[in-house]
Amino acid sequence: MAQREKDYDLLVIGGDAAGMSAASQARRIDPAMTIGVFDKGEHISYAACGMPYYIAGQIADSNELIAVDRDEFVAKRNVDITNGAEAVRVDFDAREVVIRVGSEERAYGFRKLVIATGARAFRPPLRGIDAPDVFFLRNLSDGIAIKTRLAEKRPKRIVTIGGGFIGLELAEAFRGLGIETVIVERMESVAMSMSPFIRERIITTLQKNGVTLVTGAEINAIVEAGGALGVVTGAGTFDADMVVISTGVVPNTEFLIASPLAFDSRKAIVVNGKSETNLPGVYAAGDCATVPHLVTGKDVYMPLGSTANKQGRVAGLQVAGVASEVFPGIVGSQFVKIFDLEVGKTGFNAADAEREGVPAESVTATWRSRAGYCPKAQKIFMTLTINADTRHVIGAELAGTDGAALRTNVVAAAIAARMTIDELAYLDLGYAPPFSPVWDPVNAAAQKFVKRGM
Amino acid sequence: MAQREKDYDLLVIGGDAAGMSAASQARRIDPAMTIGVFDKGEHISYAACGMPYYIAGQIADSNELIAVDRDEFVAKRNVDITNGAEAVRVDFDAREVVIRVGSEERAYGFRKLVIATGARAFRPPLRGIDAPDVFFLRNLSDGIAIKTRLAEKRPKRIVTIGGGFIGLELAEAFRGLGIETVIVERMESVAMSMSPFIRERIITTLQKNGVTLVTGAEINAIVEAGGALGVVTGAGTFDADMVVISTGVVPNTEFLIASPLAFDSRKAIVVNGKSETNLPGVYAAGDCATVPHLVTGKDVYMPLGSTANKQGRVAGLQVAGVASEVFPGIVGSQFVKIFDLEVGKTGFNAADAEREGVPAESVTATWRSRAGYCPKAQKIFMTLTINADTRHVIGAELAGTDGAALRTNVVAAAIAARMTIDELAYLDLGYAPPFSPVWDPVNAAAQKFVKRGM
Repeated sequence: MAQREKDYDLLVIGGDAAGMSAASQARRIDPAMTIGVFDKGEHISYAACGMPYYIAGQIADSNELIAVDRDEFVAKRNVDITNGAEAVRVDFDAREVVIRVGSEERAYGFRKLVIATGARAFRPPLRGIDAPDVFFLRNLSDGIAIKTRLAEKRPKRIVTIGGGFIGLELAEAFRGLGIETVIVERMESVAMSMSPFIRERIITTLQKNGVTLVTGAEINAIVEAGGALGVVTGAGTFDADMVVISTGVVPNTEFLIASPLAFDSRKAIVVNGKSETNLPGVYAAGDCATVPHLVTGKDVYMPLGSTANKQGRVAGLQVAGVASEVFPGIVGSQFVKIFDLEVGKTGFNAADAEREGVPAESVTATWRSRAGYCPKAQKIFMTLTINADTRHVIGAELAGTDGAALRTNVVAAAIAARMTIDELAYLDLGYAPPFSPVWDPVNAAAQKFVKRGM
Repeated sequence: MAQREKDYDLLVIGGDAAGMSAASQARRIDPAMTIGVFDKGEHISYAACGMPYYIAGQIADSNELIAVDRDEFVAKRNVDITNGAEAVRVDFDAREVVIRVGSEERAYGFRKLVIATGARAFRPPLRGIDAPDVFFLRNLSDGIAIKTRLAEKRPKRIVTIGGGFIGLELAEAFRGLGIETVIVERMESVAMSMSPFIRERIITTLQKNGVTLVTGAEINAIVEAGGALGVVTGAGTFDADMVVISTGVVPNTEFLIASPLAFDSRKAIVVNGKSETNLPGVYAAGDCATVPHLVTGKDVYMPLGSTANKQGRVAGLQVAGVASEVFPGIVGSQFVKIFDLEVGKTGFNAADAEREGVPAESVTATWRSRAGYCPKAQKIFMTLTINADTRHVIGAELAGTDGAALRTNVVAAAIAARMTIDELAYLDLGYAPPFSPVWDPVNAAAQKFVKRGM
């Protein structure tokens, strides 16, 4: 090994949300420490979740998706940032990272290390996946590639493989551009993380907006002939001018897998509420790491931007000696907009609880978003789930059009604070006719359990 | 005393939200008990909070504001309802209520009693208050009277006395009808229940919408000459075609004041979380009663429709023997819409905390409603208050235009569950660019305390 290029007090691998949050917070507390950030891509700190809106044309310039100005960050915060720099191995005993830049390998020392390498799109073992006009959407370069190709090729028809939230957001973007859109999903339905009651609203919304859904279909291959693609499934072959695959992500941890770091079954790095790994002075944050789930206390892999920012911030503060800073964990809160349908989920639904061995009871409820006499009152569809033994609230899903998603956050707070359903049923939530009925939808859903218990 | 007309298992005095909820829940549990409801007004169970929207013309028919169909309720639920029936005294030993209907007094016996007489508009001691075209807004008849008079007189200018939430909602209604609107308020500002930071947004909104504010002005008299009114204040006399007075409410409890019932200093009936008064088998609910405040544990008088419904429901269930049903109390959550400004408050602001002797710290914060790159992102203005000793979250105020009010409910849950500011700062709230930035506004405001503590 060549001599070290430089020794850093803090070395950060990965310059997206988690990594840049860590660097930024460490610098805020400690103006003196040396900090180096290495990222294998072209961009730092881009807003991955904004890409469907960029592709849809609602955000004109990809630069708007870049949260941190690289040059300004380097100059003002005195942080070294190297792009096109991929970590190839870490020697935890020697406290050294080997980074490949172009064809060259360089060694850098560290006192503290934050691993924030994120995740990449899962590539299903599918024949023909390398055909031209087959895309993945994960990093900003992917987003730019899709948008560029849309403008060049002006596709009439796109097949999206995978009916998770990102696939659904993409379908909305494509339909907004007037493109025929087919979602092909191997499982029995799209949005399989949601309960059947809420899923039904999602499916209705997709169909109303002209999205073709092909579900429960084994996906066998992608074929290509003369610029035209075909997605070959158990339910027939679907023609397409472009294909986008969105079938989940895998953590970028291969280069570490032989190390003494602790991983979970999905090869995500296990961290605690201080973003600490099992190795001293080594932290991990964001889409390459697990996070504690407050309902079960288990470490789970649930990569989301909101979690990446929190874990990154805590990692940076811990590195800088702010030991009190803790992100205790998630309850699994997520929002997604699907055309005009707002969807929110937090905690467990009945299926999640069963999978985790938590004794659960669920109700569904349909309520109004505002006082019934308000002309703008809309329906809110809800599921609410409790631990059947303790009566603690453990989950909710909401769908609708008038603040449905935001209302999920009340239940997120209730879950995190271990509130019982009886407390939630009488929780003093705000009331005014333009915002809520006199019994808030969340109160109303919770009352269903209370009434049932009589 | 004449012989009793009838003996009821449950007698309810007052047929609005609280009283009708009690009757309805008692009947649901117990199909056999005899139930009688007596209300002194013309209507039962009307939506008082909807009246500004009825006056504004957004709700065409006053019948839409009636939540419960009287005849249907009588027939299907087998409940006697008598309107124009005012309770004049209660003999708690004899378990008998004397009701005046027209000029006649009738006695009714009860086994259980629910007092839900509500509140009436406070009439300030103001010379000229009985002049024609001077209105109060409290019950549905008041609302109909104002709307009828607006149509007849087509006023050019209205002076509203009182700058509380109802006065502000009325100002919006009048401006929407093209009427010059002046709010006259004795205190230094309108919306005095809010912190100065949020109040500033409210004032800006009112002024932008052409409402004239006269604050810190002693109000001396209303004068009338030839159909024109003048509101005489320390800041001059303000001409008006109509005057509406909205200066708070007083509980309707005079007929009980000499009884052994326990009252608070404002003559509201003191009840616990089961809506029980100090007398056995006697319950009170809604705007004539106190409610426990979860931050201090004290009984407070804070009459709101959401509380009336909860207390009424609990009273009815307790009467029917469902002892487990408890409304533990409020945290003081309120919403108000002022033109396009959404405003929410929960718990205490700094001034509230000082008044209650709670050691407090507050921050203000301005954040975005959505990811910064979303074209529809709006500013959210917030105050957040904690108990300085325990770091428990004790209050929040939010104002803005894109879900600001609904976001207050997250903090309501946090207060009720005794969450610390450190937990709120890292609470796992939903994220998607069309609904929230990656750090939710509530997280962001809470982080200000956390950062300050470093």
